[in-house]
Amino acid sequence: MADRRHTGLRQIGEFDFINRICGPSRDGGYHRPERVAVPVGDDAAAFTTEPDRLTLLTTDMLVEGVHFLRPAISGRDLGYKALAVNLSDIAAMGGSPREAVISIAVPEDCPLAYLEELYAGMRALAAEHEVNILGGDTTLSRRDLVINVTLTGAVATHELLRRDGARPGDLIAVTGPLGESRAGLHLIQKDLPVDTPAHQYLLEVHRRPRPHLAEGRFLAASGAVHAAMDVSDGLSSDLDHIMTQSGVGARIDAHRLPISAPLREFCRNNAIDPVGHALAGGEDYVLLCTLDPGKAAALLKNYSDTFGAPLRLIGEITAVSGEARLVDAAGTTAPLPAAGWDHFRNR
Amino acid sequence: MADRRHTGLRQIGEFDFINRICGPSRDGGYHRPERVAVPVGDDAAAFTTEPDRLTLLTTDMLVEGVHFLRPAISGRDLGYKALAVNLSDIAAMGGSPREAVISIAVPEDCPLAYLEELYAGMRALAAEHEVNILGGDTTLSRRDLVINVTLTGAVATHELLRRDGARPGDLIAVTGPLGESRAGLHLIQKDLPVDTPAHQYLLEVHRRPRPHLAEGRFLAASGAVHAAMDVSDGLSSDLDHIMTQSGVGARIDAHRLPISAPLREFCRNNAIDPVGHALAGGEDYVLLCTLDPGKAAALLKNYSDTFGAPLRLIGEITAVSGEARLVDAAGTTAPLPAAGWDHFRNR
Repeated sequence: MADRRHTGLRQIGEFDFINRICGPSRDGGYHRPERVAVPVGDDAAAFTTEPDRLTLLTTDMLVEGVHFLRPAISGRDLGYKALAVNLSDIAAMGGSPREAVISIAVPEDCPLAYLEELYAGMRALAAEHEVNILGGDTTLSRRDLVINVTLTGAVATHELLRRDGARPGDLIAVTGPLGESRAGLHLIQKDLPVDTPAHQYLLEVHRRPRPHLAEGRFLAASGAVHAAMDVSDGLSSDLDHIMTQSGVGARIDAHRLPISAPLREFCRNNAIDPVGHALAGGEDYVLLCTLDPGKAAALLKNYSDTFGAPLRLIGEITAVSGEARLVDAAGTTAPLPAAGWDHFRNR
Repeated sequence: MADRRHTGLRQIGEFDFINRICGPSRDGGYHRPERVAVPVGDDAAAFTTEPDRLTLLTTDMLVEGVHFLRPAISGRDLGYKALAVNLSDIAAMGGSPREAVISIAVPEDCPLAYLEELYAGMRALAAEHEVNILGGDTTLSRRDLVINVTLTGAVATHELLRRDGARPGDLIAVTGPLGESRAGLHLIQKDLPVDTPAHQYLLEVHRRPRPHLAEGRFLAASGAVHAAMDVSDGLSSDLDHIMTQSGVGARIDAHRLPISAPLREFCRNNAIDPVGHALAGGEDYVLLCTLDPGKAAALLKNYSDTFGAPLRLIGEITAVSGEARLVDAAGTTAPLPAAGWDHFRNR
């Protein structure tokens, strides 16, 4: 990798670019050098894996004008987010992150300072989670900045969290509040004033989604989780994946959805229905999981003791395959609105 | 992976797209299903690795307008090439390819038929080398088609081929002819007539570079190779990487460079110096290696017996770090021209 014809970056040269992001961290080396057999600079990276574990592999591409607007996001936040979305995928499998490779296509008008911030944001998050960045590919782009991160992870076979294991009677839970990131995006897109602590908080959540790796590991080790995924497209949309892949239905209790005080304030200020907003969501990066009902009580207590915050129960898996219902506090039932981000044909 | 907000592809939808390229092959399943624990459709892929081997990881991004012009390359050739360049990297480490994930950003004006050809080209090559395509990410792009392939591989630790092991006295060899792909590109770029068998052959080599995986495995298992890499930027440029990383110099014998009859015909027709053309090259995707001189004779014989074609000796590693010389048939010595493709600052 990293040395194809026609690839280039006039300002700094390809090898500098790759070495900047991969090379020794501030504390002098890879975060976990014991796994690295061949670092950046050869045809491929080489690393050791654990013999008794599965290797996880995920990749995500962020494209300027589609996933982000360069003038509206700092390099640091973009670098952070490009890695964070992949970390969230590893979290959703119950895994621990391991090695990353980064591809980046850079337009001529992208200043070096922006790229340096991008590295810094990515490297800081990699350091936090002991991810080795082992190489990548750098190329020019005619117009749009494109970043692709591929991340490996490791998980014991019996701890793997899949989407297809939900069973009727399972309790549905999430590891954090819903709809906050979407509210932060709304503030940016509508150019609304960020002049209250609530709005500042929502913007920060959108800019710096926290991958729930510790929560994912906890859930994986508990033995009480039948299915899990991360909420990236919005709860309604992502729950549909679990339902489809597990062949089950679901009931969501509207009044139990974790809607934070800042989000309620935002919804009041902008005349938005908080429940619909939380269900549609997008980029929440909390984990959605279904719990063995016989093991749920102990899990909930241990979870609260561990994280100082509750695992939020929001509904129940049902036997009616493909049917998702929303129940309000008065007991009225309606179809769960399908309002996620993956409705490609209808955009 | 594969389910981020704002990602989409109106024509076919994201899940169809990913499933088309990843899903069951024509013969009904993954090429090597025994390694696949979680296939496409979950947050990440999960697969087993061999406990006694290193895992290799490489990634390459192809960007429209930088690496290819969409009107000038068929979808089938583009899909083939996107995977082939990564296979070549695994070959250069002495490894065997294993699992791949694909990210693709698709502009609205890219017809479905082009994408279907792209899958077909990639899947045919994956089948040939028993690579499982385990997932990926699909998104829209405002203008340019972008493809990123990440590929894993496996190699025994003691068989790993690195760039930094060349020693003075090593014989320098390549596994195939040089400069052919560059000639094919020249035919496309200058819109020259492809009306002779020689020109047709050169165009085909450019469009369908063959990754030298069998050759890489052979060299790795021989125990006679001190350093290796694939020739992607051109021999002069890539030899410089081995010299720099090994702290050595090199002498290349001009008259021993493998310049094929079709390339000689092309050079005659177009008044091009074949030696300079072969050295500058680019996208050759043959392997460049340095051989233990005491083991070279046996290796050369075994190689010829195995492949029915010779491993071509082209020079020798010297002790003068960083000095590359070119010697012609008359014994005249000159500095090796540095004319590869990675001169970012000077483009």
